[in-house]
Amino acid sequence: MRIEPFRLTATEAIKAIGAGDLTVEDYARSLLDRIKERDDAVRAWIYLDGDQVLEQARALDRLPKEERGPLHGVAVAIKDVIYTKDMPTQHNSAIYKDSMPEIDAGSVTMLRQAGALIFGKTTTTEFAANVIGTKTANAHHEGRTPGGSSSGSGAAVADFQVPLALGTQTGGSMIRPASFNGIYAIKPTWGSVSREGQKIYSLNLDTLGWYARSIEDLTLLATIFGLKDDEIPRPLSNNGVSGLKLAFCKTMVWNHAGSGTRSAFSTARSLLSSSGATITDLELPPEFQSLPQLHTIMLFSDGRVSFLPEYRLAKSSLAADLVEHVEEFHGYTRKQYLSACDTIAALRPKFDALAEEFDAVIVPSVPDVAPEGLERTGSAVFQGIWTALHVPIVNIPGFTGEENMPIGVSLVAPRYRDLHLLSVAEQVAKVWVRAPLELPEERRRKKATA
Amino acid sequence: MRIEPFRLTATEAIKAIGAGDLTVEDYARSLLDRIKERDDAVRAWIYLDGDQVLEQARALDRLPKEERGPLHGVAVAIKDVIYTKDMPTQHNSAIYKDSMPEIDAGSVTMLRQAGALIFGKTTTTEFAANVIGTKTANAHHEGRTPGGSSSGSGAAVADFQVPLALGTQTGGSMIRPASFNGIYAIKPTWGSVSREGQKIYSLNLDTLGWYARSIEDLTLLATIFGLKDDEIPRPLSNNGVSGLKLAFCKTMVWNHAGSGTRSAFSTARSLLSSSGATITDLELPPEFQSLPQLHTIMLFSDGRVSFLPEYRLAKSSLAADLVEHVEEFHGYTRKQYLSACDTIAALRPKFDALAEEFDAVIVPSVPDVAPEGLERTGSAVFQGIWTALHVPIVNIPGFTGEENMPIGVSLVAPRYRDLHLLSVAEQVAKVWVRAPLELPEERRRKKATA
Repeated sequence: MRIEPFRLTATEAIKAIGAGDLTVEDYARSLLDRIKERDDAVRAWIYLDGDQVLEQARALDRLPKEERGPLHGVAVAIKDVIYTKDMPTQHNSAIYKDSMPEIDAGSVTMLRQAGALIFGKTTTTEFAANVIGTKTANAHHEGRTPGGSSSGSGAAVADFQVPLALGTQTGGSMIRPASFNGIYAIKPTWGSVSREGQKIYSLNLDTLGWYARSIEDLTLLATIFGLKDDEIPRPLSNNGVSGLKLAFCKTMVWNHAGSGTRSAFSTARSLLSSSGATITDLELPPEFQSLPQLHTIMLFSDGRVSFLPEYRLAKSSLAADLVEHVEEFHGYTRKQYLSACDTIAALRPKFDALAEEFDAVIVPSVPDVAPEGLERTGSAVFQGIWTALHVPIVNIPGFTGEENMPIGVSLVAPRYRDLHLLSVAEQVAKVWVRAPLELPEERRRKKATA
Repeated sequence: MRIEPFRLTATEAIKAIGAGDLTVEDYARSLLDRIKERDDAVRAWIYLDGDQVLEQARALDRLPKEERGPLHGVAVAIKDVIYTKDMPTQHNSAIYKDSMPEIDAGSVTMLRQAGALIFGKTTTTEFAANVIGTKTANAHHEGRTPGGSSSGSGAAVADFQVPLALGTQTGGSMIRPASFNGIYAIKPTWGSVSREGQKIYSLNLDTLGWYARSIEDLTLLATIFGLKDDEIPRPLSNNGVSGLKLAFCKTMVWNHAGSGTRSAFSTARSLLSSSGATITDLELPPEFQSLPQLHTIMLFSDGRVSFLPEYRLAKSSLAADLVEHVEEFHGYTRKQYLSACDTIAALRPKFDALAEEFDAVIVPSVPDVAPEGLERTGSAVFQGIWTALHVPIVNIPGFTGEENMPIGVSLVAPRYRDLHLLSVAEQVAKVWVRAPLELPEERRRKKATA
């Protein structure tokens, strides 16, 4: 085939493999070569064994056609807080160095059953629970953070090292790396996908999500993971976004938006408007004002419970901010915690009712492009809101900020309207992302020439 | 020492071991002998390796005094849906036969760090998610169920095979076995203890709990697991229950109460009343009426998500009712599910406010004594309410129904008042349970003689 296999989206790879134009082994080799070429710059992987990958690939190639699953041969990277029976899961914690639980997470089980090629483990901040950077760099800039906590998953997909990757979000851990690295991501409705075998930070907030380089690929995994709306999303017209009712919501933390997000938000709006969408502004009622603070109280209080075992086991091996959760450094009482839980719970149906009036609500993904330096993974200030409300959110890339770094804008919908949201996102993406995503180094070269 | 070690509560065993009157090894041997004698009748264990237990015991005996933890040498049984790094975790599922994840659950980590002797794995219904009985019999009657899903943990503690055991509750899986086997149990506030490494049935409901033969022992584990109220419970007077304000709440499902529970409830009331407690009736407002039904919708819908991976992996190995969850046999929509989540969430602070008026709210544990037969584990109708409301609940034994079978009555309190609840339960237990718990066979002999 003409195009190098590593450049394919998951859907394209499935087609090529299904048509017999590509073996899983050749596909895997192409990805491994890509990683070899790029790993010095990006460092997305914490565990990757090429021989193991090729062995899996050959086993998939040997599988009779009638036993092949819908993801047959597609490479998926797994964030290193999610169990894989044949690879270590280390949570970026010295406590779990080389730990190998020998069970698959629920999500990994579903991937394997569908025929996916489980490629390796990608970097995460410690227990996906803080903002201290990993070794991984942004796929588009060696000196900038890829975001976190799903650092490696976001960078690996953006760098064409795999077409799909699993991540998790408790604050902004899915959407921030998507925006920073210029790719697509979904954090589905809380509780809609099995969390079995995924390290717990917050019972109330943790959500599995996934990265891809197209909405089509996000939707593919949504069906593999069993997402289903009550109503089959009505087919959108072939007119793209024309006739769609879309609300722009700057949120109560808009003052955190930098020039990148301000410009992306305004471009996003003009593009949709000139493409025939009906645009409205949505201002959240005053009772939503405290949501970011309530999210923090919930998060830190849940963290107190979640990290107590590790604290007892090896306090000195635990990051300072996780020790602070356990030691109640921030001083949140049980009463404040319950009040946060109850207030957020009451806001969820209220937001659903507001959002139901629109085909989607458009919101900022992040304050700005990926900050410089790998020490910190950036701010989740625009994401805690949606994680707390349990709504599905999809990041769409396509905008740029300083130094031509990518920046995304997100779409949200009421809870359990995930498939609807993806179908709206597909139309919106056609307006915002006017060309297929490019290799980071080609994108950079092109810009330099221009 | 005079008393056989297996008869000791955890607190007594700690004292004896701490004083040098008993080695951990001799203690373990006594428990293993007890199990040997009784296992043909009770069959509480799904994994127990005597040599492994003794090896652990000797290692604990060798530990220098200054390195010993607060639970040094105390035997704890672990329900077989909770991971233990050195024993298989099989969930009573063919899919997980001999599965050995090689990690400890958060709860098990905290127990080991405190010096506990992790004794073995106790039987559970499949994934702690249905009411199909295990091989285990009630400690007091070979022909009756021990309840479930924490079948083995409840029976083992009641039968003096271990003083402490971990269980879980999603419907009535902690309190029902406690009532049926005549022992103490706490299901603490939802989210207050790490659920890491515990198989997920319902994200919204699953709660770790524990069994003991005294309130003192329940409190001991509460501190090990980090439970803490905002306010230190005010010391109760030495007058026992005198002056306590207690509410009796028959609940909206009182029509399910059989003669055993009716009689226990009325005896419980007379005993407290004649001991000087102030007794009130609490009728839940009409808006609580649908709580049992809402709990079911939440449970089955969460089960749909949780068992999808196993369904994909090996549908034919999954119990029919779990397949039904995945296949949406009951037909609950996402909308009904969200409505259940939101309605229950709104009721939580309302119940807290009602319960705050009292030192505790007294509620039925079960419809009646343990039913005959081992095929089914009995009804959870009185427990779904409290599991959904996330409140702590403590079962206190001491009553009897037909065939002299034990029956318990429970105390509940607002969320995060667990230690307060335990301190009230301690006084109430003195009134209800007038003698230390007896060996099942001695209790039976005594009754036969009387």
